[in-house]
Amino acid sequence: MKKIEAFIRNESFEAVRMDLLDKGFPSLSISEAQGSGRQKGITEQYRGSELTIHLRPKLKLEIVVDDKDVSVIVESILKHARTGQVGDGKIFVLPVEAAIRIRTGEDGELVLQAHEAEEIPAGA
Amino acid sequence: MKKIEAFIRNESFEAVRMDLLDKGFPSLSISEAQGSGRQKGITEQYRGSELTIHLRPKLKLEIVVDDKDVSVIVESILKHARTGQVGDGKIFVLPVEAAIRIRTGEDGELVLQAHEAEEIPAGA
Amino acid sequence: MKKIEAFIRNESFEAVRMDLLDKGFPSLSISEAQGSGRQKGITEQYRGSELTIHLRPKLKLEIVVDDKDVSVIVESILKHARTGQVGDGKIFVLPVEAAIRIRTGEDGELVLQAHEAEEIPAGA
Repeated sequence: MKKIEAFIRNESFEAVRMDLLDKGFPSLSISEAQGSGRQKGITEQYRGSELTIHLRPKLKLEIVVDDKDVSVIVESILKHARTGQVGDGKIFVLPVEAAIRIRTGEDGELVLQAHEAEEIPAGA
Repeated sequence: MKKIEAFIRNESFEAVRMDLLDKGFPSLSISEAQGSGRQKGITEQYRGSELTIHLRPKLKLEIVVDDKDVSVIVESILKHARTGQVGDGKIFVLPVEAAIRIRTGEDGELVLQAHEAEEIPAGA
Repeated sequence: MKKIEAFIRNESFEAVRMDLLDKGFPSLSISEAQGSGRQKGITEQYRGSELTIHLRPKLKLEIVVDDKDVSVIVESILKHARTGQVGDGKIFVLPVEAAIRIRTGEDGELVLQAHEAEEIPAGA
């Protein structure tokens, strides 16, 4: 299992989310972050030289999937979170050793994204 | 060392927290997140079919422990964060390669949860 | 590649940030967290004995770097986030298997902290 952590623009989330849902990956978590990278930012004097200091709102997306599903998640994020402008963010992939569903105590890959049809309420 | 990341109901935290404290694990971090999974949510039309979109407040609990302590932490969370209803959340276990206490620069397992008695103020 | 997660005092961030920028590591993310550890906190009665319950605001710093750069990051945090008082926080190092820049789709270590001069606007 792998954990995908993506730091994306807030405004990219809906498109990523819809695509992941469409592809069968409804389970994810988001939180607010501030990130800096190559993008231009607030310029200030520091130790005699100008530096661009840049902290911008980012949405941190966390999603844990089976190894075989990493590429589809990454492709979805690349497709829907890319504007081509500096500041689009980054994706990291980390190893996950265990996953447990609290409600049932089940563990392993079955608790990740695969959903039995009867558990997805249609329009409920 | 392992990092346990649990996405739980906000209202489950106090019980988990008290139990972990009781078992000798006072060091942890929490942050606000929004998560989605199998639970029912806001229904909206999407590409002609109804989908349940669900993002709900979750508390993200992070705790780093020695390998041998993973099971007691997981058991505590399962016991105290389980309501039996969809939406109880998940627990993930990730490998951690190093841990350093900033105050002293010490590293390794000794900086994790074990506390010498004199450093826990009694009623202070 | 490694991910460094540091839980530090909010007031330590600027010094850490400036030093990391100075050393060529502009890419990082921060978010708000609450942490507890050995520091004194709010005391309350619990199961008949007094316990110190302590959740304090912490800043979570996340930075992904090449293996060879872990020590310089850790040293910087230790130097600038250490007050010597209980509550300075901790640093954790986790393995990272992949890193992708969303704007270009590039992956690997080249997307991390190394910046070509022309991409850092001087006073822009």
